[in-house]
Order: sequence, then structure tokens, then C-alpha cells
Amino acid sequence: MKVRVLIRPKRGLLDPQGQAVERALPALGFEGFRNVRVGRLVELETEHPERVPELCERLLANTLIEDYEILEER
Amino acid sequence: MKVRVLIRPKRGLLDPQGQAVERALPALGFEGFRNVRVGRLVELETEHPERVPELCERLLANTLIEDYEILEER
Repeated sequence: MKVRVLIRPKRGLLDPQGQAVERALPALGFEGFRNVRVGRLVELETEHPERVPELCERLLANTLIEDYEILEER
Repeated sequence: MKVRVLIRPKRGLLDPQGQAVERALPALGFEGFRNVRVGRLVELETEHPERVPELCERLLANTLIEDYEILEER
């Protein structure tokens, strides 16, 4: 089974990467793009999807400053 | 409209981050997890979703070594 994990900075926390992208957009001619947030994507295959939350908590995400979301189990 | 862009290393290209995670898993007691790939997630809001592919090609993804996928326009 293929699992996708989206990891991103918690709301309200500074997101320097997101802000850098957001500031660069108008100069490149991209008006009307806001609230840019940059996080990580981890894709993996497993027979134990029930263990993915534990994997996120212990290895993939720093839960002090990041949220994670598990997507699309096929 | 909220748009999510998933950016990951092209298949067949070296993915050192993914490999590092994959090698660490058994030592942490996570057996049965394979093909780990680590990429980037960019979330943004825009009134111009038709311009997101252009934004990916020019700014968000390095299309020589990365693929991108546009997800979930709400």
C-alpha cells in the first residue's frame, strides 16, 4: 500500500521558506499568490499503514513545530 | 482557491534523503516500509490556478531532476 505524508510548519509559526517564495513571486510576474507554505512530502510503501502515525510522531515530523497529514492510501 | 504542489525526485534518480530514512527504519523497529521518497510540499492560495503549472516550471521545481504534481484545488 502506498502512503503519502505531508509535513508542514504549524500555523502561526515562522515559515521562512514559504515567505521567501511568497516575496519572490511578484518580481517573477506572479501576482495574486498568497499564504505560501513550504513543507515536506514523504512517500513510502508498507503493509503496516496502521503504524504510519507512529512513524510520523517518532521519525518523520518534529511535532513541536510541525503538523503532519497522511494522504491517499492506495 | 487553495492549491497543493507535491515536488519529488524523478524516478530512477538518487534520493539520498529517502534512502537515509529507509535505512533508519529497521533500527527504530519499523519493518516492512519500502521505497521511501522525500520531496517538498508547497501550499498556496491564488485566484489564478491556471498559472500554477508555469509557477512550478519556473520557480518551485527543478524540472531537470524533479517531477511535480498539482493536488486538490478547493
